[in-house]
Amino acid sequence: MGNSAPIVAVDVMGSDLGPEELLYGIKAFLSEDKGDYEIVVVGNEEITVPMMMRLGILKDPRIKSYNAKEVITMEEKPIQALKQKKNASMMRAIEIVKIGTADAVLSCGNTGALMAGGTIKLRTMSGIERPALGTVIPGRKRNFVMIDVGASPDPKPETLVDNAILGINYAKVALGIENPKVGLLSNGTEDGKGNMLVQTAHRLFKIQSEAINYGGLLEGFNLFDGSFDVVVCDGFTGNVVLKSLEGSMRMFKQILKEEISKSIIRKIGILLASGAFFGLRKRLPIDKFSGAPLLGLNGLVVKAHGSSTRKQIAGALEITVKCLRNKMNQKISEDIAKIEAIVQANKRAALEKQNMGA
Amino acid sequence: MGNSAPIVAVDVMGSDLGPEELLYGIKAFLSEDKGDYEIVVVGNEEITVPMMMRLGILKDPRIKSYNAKEVITMEEKPIQALKQKKNASMMRAIEIVKIGTADAVLSCGNTGALMAGGTIKLRTMSGIERPALGTVIPGRKRNFVMIDVGASPDPKPETLVDNAILGINYAKVALGIENPKVGLLSNGTEDGKGNMLVQTAHRLFKIQSEAINYGGLLEGFNLFDGSFDVVVCDGFTGNVVLKSLEGSMRMFKQILKEEISKSIIRKIGILLASGAFFGLRKRLPIDKFSGAPLLGLNGLVVKAHGSSTRKQIAGALEITVKCLRNKMNQKISEDIAKIEAIVQANKRAALEKQNMGA
Repeated sequence: MGNSAPIVAVDVMGSDLGPEELLYGIKAFLSEDKGDYEIVVVGNEEITVPMMMRLGILKDPRIKSYNAKEVITMEEKPIQALKQKKNASMMRAIEIVKIGTADAVLSCGNTGALMAGGTIKLRTMSGIERPALGTVIPGRKRNFVMIDVGASPDPKPETLVDNAILGINYAKVALGIENPKVGLLSNGTEDGKGNMLVQTAHRLFKIQSEAINYGGLLEGFNLFDGSFDVVVCDGFTGNVVLKSLEGSMRMFKQILKEEISKSIIRKIGILLASGAFFGLRKRLPIDKFSGAPLLGLNGLVVKAHGSSTRKQIAGALEITVKCLRNKMNQKISEDIAKIEAIVQANKRAALEKQNMGA
Repeated sequence: MGNSAPIVAVDVMGSDLGPEELLYGIKAFLSEDKGDYEIVVVGNEEITVPMMMRLGILKDPRIKSYNAKEVITMEEKPIQALKQKKNASMMRAIEIVKIGTADAVLSCGNTGALMAGGTIKLRTMSGIERPALGTVIPGRKRNFVMIDVGASPDPKPETLVDNAILGINYAKVALGIENPKVGLLSNGTEDGKGNMLVQTAHRLFKIQSEAINYGGLLEGFNLFDGSFDVVVCDGFTGNVVLKSLEGSMRMFKQILKEEISKSIIRKIGILLASGAFFGLRKRLPIDKFSGAPLLGLNGLVVKAHGSSTRKQIAGALEITVKCLRNKMNQKISEDIAKIEAIVQANKRAALEKQNMGA
């Protein structure tokens, strides 16, 4: 596992757009990336095999098929689904990673079930207490990783330091940055700002400067101005911020559409200016980063939006394979060990100081 | 105090744009609202009196002047400024409210100093432990109040219930809604979602249904879709969300500007479509709600953006006077007493049940 070509198990059943959209995404990725890897298509073969045949990808040597008849729907309660649907495509895909037949899972399905299933079945890496959901957010000059955007709503301060390690390693792969700069999301940058969690984590980050390129606190104002490559926060705040941003984008689009449709002159104007909007879209490449990995587990679990298009699925596959090729999880282990060593050394130093004082 | 015409003390010194911009805002409000009220202009009279004379508002019977020579800058640490600059315009304006000569303070100055000064000098109303910063945010179909956006980063669950009462009363005045619907901001709407604070507050809200029109949890996705009139959250999350939204708006505007400037066709197009952008702006009336009140104190403290324009100052004055005319603080007191009565009744009922069981 991980020594030879990367193997990704794709749960093709849980998507809002149905398995065909996912298979089209896999097809797109197969023709984009001619390299060495394998994709295990996990789903009801009565449905998936004829589809793959029609799309002409069934015979591709990089495609394997795995039969799993059940599907976990978006409405199901995670823990209940986990217990009752042992043969669901999502659970089977996770199992394949657990037994070492694959290195990563990609799924568009029920987020709660994927996080719970991934955490319970794969377990966290040694030295990591809780997994964290990371995502790439496009910024004005450069993109950044935000972590955690939903896995742990009540983390300890130490967890935020772990999240930084996870985010740094993901940023290295996803953004191609050598030494990512870490910022801690807060309600102000002056001393004394932040809630108790942030204030304590801020102190912990300061003593980890050997292992983490820590740049301090940042406010929401500065989120998009390119000062930080990795923005660390608790999973509650990250989730609320991410969804609020999405909600506001949706609102602006909707209102602008309504306003444009009010006159023919406005419509013509927007047509003439359309290049600017294409440019905006190009500079904020949301499709490319639609996959959000649940980091810190023994194996990689990547969550894609429930309504991911084929283009977004291809993008999520690209990032997943990239993480595996770069042996990201191995590097995370090494970094966590480094942090642990610093913590131990600090403890020893404090103890010696105490002993000398006595 | 509060029995006759409303009196607002305006700190005209702390603004990024200088006292003149504020005085222009006051002038605009004086000509917009011909009703009964008084504005106390607090600032260095060597500067403010000649300016008021030039603007032709010095002789207006609704204008009073109060001399305060010092200014608290944006960079100063709140508590230090509070101690050292007793003669600062902001502190004098708060003092005037404390002694009952005015009913409200309006300031564009240092937020931390205003919040600390307001809280320490005016103290919270009976039954309220901590003040909360509320603000009106424009939505797609209707606007809503978000509270708290920065006063208490680590509130107790009970504080969120108090915040709802404060927000409801502000929404009644600012949005003109009879029975505002309250939502609790969370990372998901299903049972079990939320951090510990939200989960506990959610339970508290459910037993307050006589006093609060509680609609349950909401996600960031739904923030702007008009389902709730008052969105309650802790001051950390609210601050981060508000500033992130502002940061993203700034980024979109900037990128779009750059993209438009790339070709003459695009520029012409945007000119033709400009009506749509004016429409967008009109439907999201940010200027009108630029003042954010710090609610729950004995007296009203309204914070306006450091770089507020005259139009925004006039808007902030409008909302401040409206709160005073509607006797908002008195109504808050009554509602808090109602909540307290329900809590006590519940305690009694639980005790009786226990006694009957014994």
